[in-house]
Amino acid sequence: MSAEDIRTLDPILRPRSIAVVGASRQPGTIGYQVVANLVRHGYTGVVYPVNPKANSIHSIPAYASVAEIPGEVDMAVVVVPKQHVLDVVDQCGAKGIKGLVVISAGFREVGGAGAERERELVERVRRHGMRLVGPNCMGVMSTAPELSMNATFAPNMPPPGPVSLMSQSGAMGVTILDYAAEYGIGINDFVSVGNKPDVSGNDLVQYWGEDERTSVILMYLENFGNPRHFTPLARKVTKKKAIIVVKAGRTGAGAQAASSHTGALAGLDVATDALLAQCGVIRVDTVEELFDMAMAFGTLSVPKGNRVAIVTNAGGPGIIIADACEARGLDVAPLSEETQASLREVLAAEASVRNPVDMIASATPESYRLVLDRVLGDESVDAAIAAFVPPLGIKQEEVAGAIVDATRGHDKPVLAVLMGREGLPAGRAQLKEAGVPGYIFPESAAKALAAMYRHRQWQERPEGTFVEFDVDRPAVRRIMDEACAKKTEHLAGPDALAVFQAYGIPVLESRVVQSGEEAAAAAEELGLPVVLKIESPDVVHKTDVGGVVLDLRTPEKVRKACDAMLERVRTELPDARVAGVLVQRFVAGGRETIIGGTTDPTYGPLLMFGLGGIYVEVLQDVVFRVHPISDLDAREMVRSIRGYKIFEGFRGEPPVDQDTMVEVIQRVAQLMAENPEIEELDINPFLVQEKGGVALDARVRIRCG
Amino acid sequence: MSAEDIRTLDPILRPRSIAVVGASRQPGTIGYQVVANLVRHGYTGVVYPVNPKANSIHSIPAYASVAEIPGEVDMAVVVVPKQHVLDVVDQCGAKGIKGLVVISAGFREVGGAGAERERELVERVRRHGMRLVGPNCMGVMSTAPELSMNATFAPNMPPPGPVSLMSQSGAMGVTILDYAAEYGIGINDFVSVGNKPDVSGNDLVQYWGEDERTSVILMYLENFGNPRHFTPLARKVTKKKAIIVVKAGRTGAGAQAASSHTGALAGLDVATDALLAQCGVIRVDTVEELFDMAMAFGTLSVPKGNRVAIVTNAGGPGIIIADACEARGLDVAPLSEETQASLREVLAAEASVRNPVDMIASATPESYRLVLDRVLGDESVDAAIAAFVPPLGIKQEEVAGAIVDATRGHDKPVLAVLMGREGLPAGRAQLKEAGVPGYIFPESAAKALAAMYRHRQWQERPEGTFVEFDVDRPAVRRIMDEACAKKTEHLAGPDALAVFQAYGIPVLESRVVQSGEEAAAAAEELGLPVVLKIESPDVVHKTDVGGVVLDLRTPEKVRKACDAMLERVRTELPDARVAGVLVQRFVAGGRETIIGGTTDPTYGPLLMFGLGGIYVEVLQDVVFRVHPISDLDAREMVRSIRGYKIFEGFRGEPPVDQDTMVEVIQRVAQLMAENPEIEELDINPFLVQEKGGVALDARVRIRCG
Repeated sequence: MSAEDIRTLDPILRPRSIAVVGASRQPGTIGYQVVANLVRHGYTGVVYPVNPKANSIHSIPAYASVAEIPGEVDMAVVVVPKQHVLDVVDQCGAKGIKGLVVISAGFREVGGAGAERERELVERVRRHGMRLVGPNCMGVMSTAPELSMNATFAPNMPPPGPVSLMSQSGAMGVTILDYAAEYGIGINDFVSVGNKPDVSGNDLVQYWGEDERTSVILMYLENFGNPRHFTPLARKVTKKKAIIVVKAGRTGAGAQAASSHTGALAGLDVATDALLAQCGVIRVDTVEELFDMAMAFGTLSVPKGNRVAIVTNAGGPGIIIADACEARGLDVAPLSEETQASLREVLAAEASVRNPVDMIASATPESYRLVLDRVLGDESVDAAIAAFVPPLGIKQEEVAGAIVDATRGHDKPVLAVLMGREGLPAGRAQLKEAGVPGYIFPESAAKALAAMYRHRQWQERPEGTFVEFDVDRPAVRRIMDEACAKKTEHLAGPDALAVFQAYGIPVLESRVVQSGEEAAAAAEELGLPVVLKIESPDVVHKTDVGGVVLDLRTPEKVRKACDAMLERVRTELPDARVAGVLVQRFVAGGRETIIGGTTDPTYGPLLMFGLGGIYVEVLQDVVFRVHPISDLDAREMVRSIRGYKIFEGFRGEPPVDQDTMVEVIQRVAQLMAENPEIEELDINPFLVQEKGGVALDARVRIRCG
Repeated sequence: MSAEDIRTLDPILRPRSIAVVGASRQPGTIGYQVVANLVRHGYTGVVYPVNPKANSIHSIPAYASVAEIPGEVDMAVVVVPKQHVLDVVDQCGAKGIKGLVVISAGFREVGGAGAERERELVERVRRHGMRLVGPNCMGVMSTAPELSMNATFAPNMPPPGPVSLMSQSGAMGVTILDYAAEYGIGINDFVSVGNKPDVSGNDLVQYWGEDERTSVILMYLENFGNPRHFTPLARKVTKKKAIIVVKAGRTGAGAQAASSHTGALAGLDVATDALLAQCGVIRVDTVEELFDMAMAFGTLSVPKGNRVAIVTNAGGPGIIIADACEARGLDVAPLSEETQASLREVLAAEASVRNPVDMIASATPESYRLVLDRVLGDESVDAAIAAFVPPLGIKQEEVAGAIVDATRGHDKPVLAVLMGREGLPAGRAQLKEAGVPGYIFPESAAKALAAMYRHRQWQERPEGTFVEFDVDRPAVRRIMDEACAKKTEHLAGPDALAVFQAYGIPVLESRVVQSGEEAAAAAEELGLPVVLKIESPDVVHKTDVGGVVLDLRTPEKVRKACDAMLERVRTELPDARVAGVLVQRFVAGGRETIIGGTTDPTYGPLLMFGLGGIYVEVLQDVVFRVHPISDLDAREMVRSIRGYKIFEGFRGEPPVDQDTMVEVIQRVAQLMAENPEIEELDINPFLVQEKGGVALDARVRIRCG
């Protein structure tokens, strides 16, 4: 959608008047509850209940049909039985209504006639120039005081706040809203998208990306509608706002191609992980983590660095938080000497002033205020976590108040952990009001702070460049056409290598020769040094008869060695059939990697990089990214495998050429993007050396005709 | 402790009379709170407050000193200032008191004079034949109705139940108790062990191991006192009961030896992980997981298998639970055809009856009852998780009631997830009463069930055998004495290999010879086939001059090849200094592994197994176990590395000999256990082949004198 197109969602998210079609006087029905919610939560616009059999609903005049409504209507909430929905849509269209929220179920989710009904619904909506949320959804909510709209049938409306939520599951959405209030998370908009044949997650990300009230976007997803649109959009939005996603269910990425390397490794939901990581989206595993993150991102600005100070009144929580922080890349470094000295002035002799600061059980609310203030003033501290375990006689709310006081005048994020039950709601409320997220469990605070730091790293990360290499497209076209003519959908060995060579990737060539003279010529053509190997089906142990000579460095040595080899074999194995001698460039040392890709039905080209050889399958030390891939993305791929150290000069061995891997990954990405007939490919191994590298073997699978 | 010795804890955990020394009339003091807690929570024994300045405390007659108490006293709770503690101990000893709980702080935790005071305290306690909990602790609790003792200064006492808790941090202990009530977790005993110079976690595990009321033991640990006692004890107790541990802080295991392989890899807290895994102890990362586990283990018996049925009223939670179950080794297989047919009878047409069973939003409490009952009756189901998201008009407590009804008559664990906030406490209470754990977040239930299944696997796992191999101890003694005489604490190459050879581990030997004749003799001695390599500081590219010949299979070939090699080098490089020709057994193929060990100051011998070569350091695909190691433990080590598949015949290559690795691991374990001077060792690589294997290189570090 363009910037203007986003505004087509305004009638749904910012309506000045709402018709509830299928409004009811009967408590317990959805038609009753939607009107009740609008009224009870103080919707500031006009509500028009539509019901042919009632004069008024909730004391509001009711109309027999949409056509009879006297004023202008922005949005209609439709709760009539499924068989009447299409007629209602036409009536809304005739009335000039531009926003539609269809709560009614019985569409694609039930299959068969339902799917047909949904196709018809979308067609009519398009015809009338409307936008549609649902069908089969819970409705929409917008809490901003000047709107205060609860157009759902969920009974509670959370307090206003900076978090907007879209949920593909209505039930999960309502549960999330329900707990949001308890966690002190304020909500701006909530959209239950239902079957989402029109308004999708992408539309909402774009809308909320431009929405001033929204600084955090939460998404509960069960599948991705159009990830290729999501990628560029999310990349942009996450530079300004946080997008936090719980994705339930696993994608079938590559499941059909599970027989081959990349396909098998791309199984499960690595594609989703790759996609989200490339867009700076924070993926969480559980709904609980969603809350933990939302609390922090909703109230704090991201820390400037990863150095965290921990302040507690007991050793246990301090250790737990420190462990959790360090495990996630935060740095729990000792405080400056000056800060330590200034803490010693105000703390008991038994207290520990390094970091974590353990003020011991005798700490008072005033201790929290003094110590936090001094710690936040330390230039070696970027953020703080304050944890409190209630001992005898100190109230949580007093400590909460002291923590809030201490944060004033410091521009650094502070997270609080209140570990007691008594006084918790009061303490949390106080923290929330002051913009300090309050956690119950110490690990949650550490996780959230670590995610914020990673988000800052993402936001500061340059985009990288997207290169288009000059390649030999016709050559690839020719190879694929020939293969298809021969009904060969699997290319291997030299045929496959030729495809990569056409895209500028160095491959290992070889020649079979019959004499020393020919060998020397081939060696000069292929590049020295070379290897010679006897080519004979009858020579099993080639080394036994001197049938392998490595690392020949001059044409003269090649000539001699080849003649000697042919002579030796003729003498020692006179009956062996000899096809000649294979001349191949000698590549020694280096590291085996795999560079591959698979075309995911949902995500498009999915690129893979990892350790090669047998280790790729056994250890699965591989990493994925979806197209498009910048030079920076490619470099991150190389750096993010577990075995990365192996490339960096290791135990006296020289480092290998990372630039080459980065370039080859980008070239392979371009090859896949420009040739969508390629279903899957891999170079295994791609041998990367001190300088440059070479593809030793490869496979390409194409889809013909 | 022997079975009788455990009973020495009875005066502390089951006292019939308690003296509170340092009791106070002043609210807000610990001396007041302890007496108040005993009285308020209905302690069924006799309380004797001791305070020289009060006639009565809480209407109970007070005594000026312990000596003046008229009756017999089992236990004294000591809350006097630190400088009076030692005197009080002597008075208690004189009175014949056998149990002591010292809450007073100011001992080892403050260092210096405090540590000295603690040593004196322990000595006096031993002299009087007492047992001591604390000092620097929160006290002890025992909720059994016939005792009902809250001898702590924590205000709340949780309801009785099957879970006993020990905490090294008083603050964390109180927090855990505080939330236990909210999670519906009943507590039997609580002991805050404080500095634990006498009564330790080991004592309590043994006590609770024999305690009929305790079926789950929770431990919050910051360090291990004596892991070598813990191991055999926990191994036994976990066969009957669950032990769940949160261990905060990281052990310094091997940190001092971080320069070398095994040491560096053994960093962090792998030793703790290894130890706990070997004992069947469930280690959790967070306090929250501790609750999730305790709820399940405290109320359910472990499932007979891993097949779980999921019943929900919305798709979202069903997907989340299924994902979480499968990720943790549970099987969400389709229900039997009969069950599916019987569910179709009672559910809406749109419902899904496979597994997860999605009854959709129209499901009633009766649907839960009917469906769960049928699902539990399915023979292909071992356990069930029922999740409920509240839609309009259905109450959580009604669903909870239906779930409880359905579980009756089935001997299978059922876990419930109630995702709404309203009615949650009532719903949870109902579940708890019926022994069904109730979770808020769907992932928590899946995690807990998976842990229960793993616990069953542990309980069914045979012990394995602990073999003592017949080895050449004097040979190792000799090598170590010689090394120490030469002040060589690091053995490498042949010296190190000799150590392993003495313990029956095959090592690769070599000889340097001067002629073909000698080479043939050496080859016969070492075993054919062999490799020949020219030994010369002046030959850099050995292959260039034919200075390497592999895989020679007869003495005759060895003789010829050696003479030819010497001749060739003499001709082509007349100036090269030649030391001779190295003869070594030819080992081809096989897989490189590392087998090593380090002596951890706390844990004793810590054995390591993993992939060898450069991959060991880069990928750290290694696994640890602490001594003693049964054959089964060794086999599990081999099987539990990520790259295990590489041993199992892979891509047409033959499988390698796993029995050999298992035996070598056990022999290395014996070597370390019998020679405590060995600080660290590794065989890297140990090449394992189709049949047998061989150590190619090794290092041993010993501590002399």
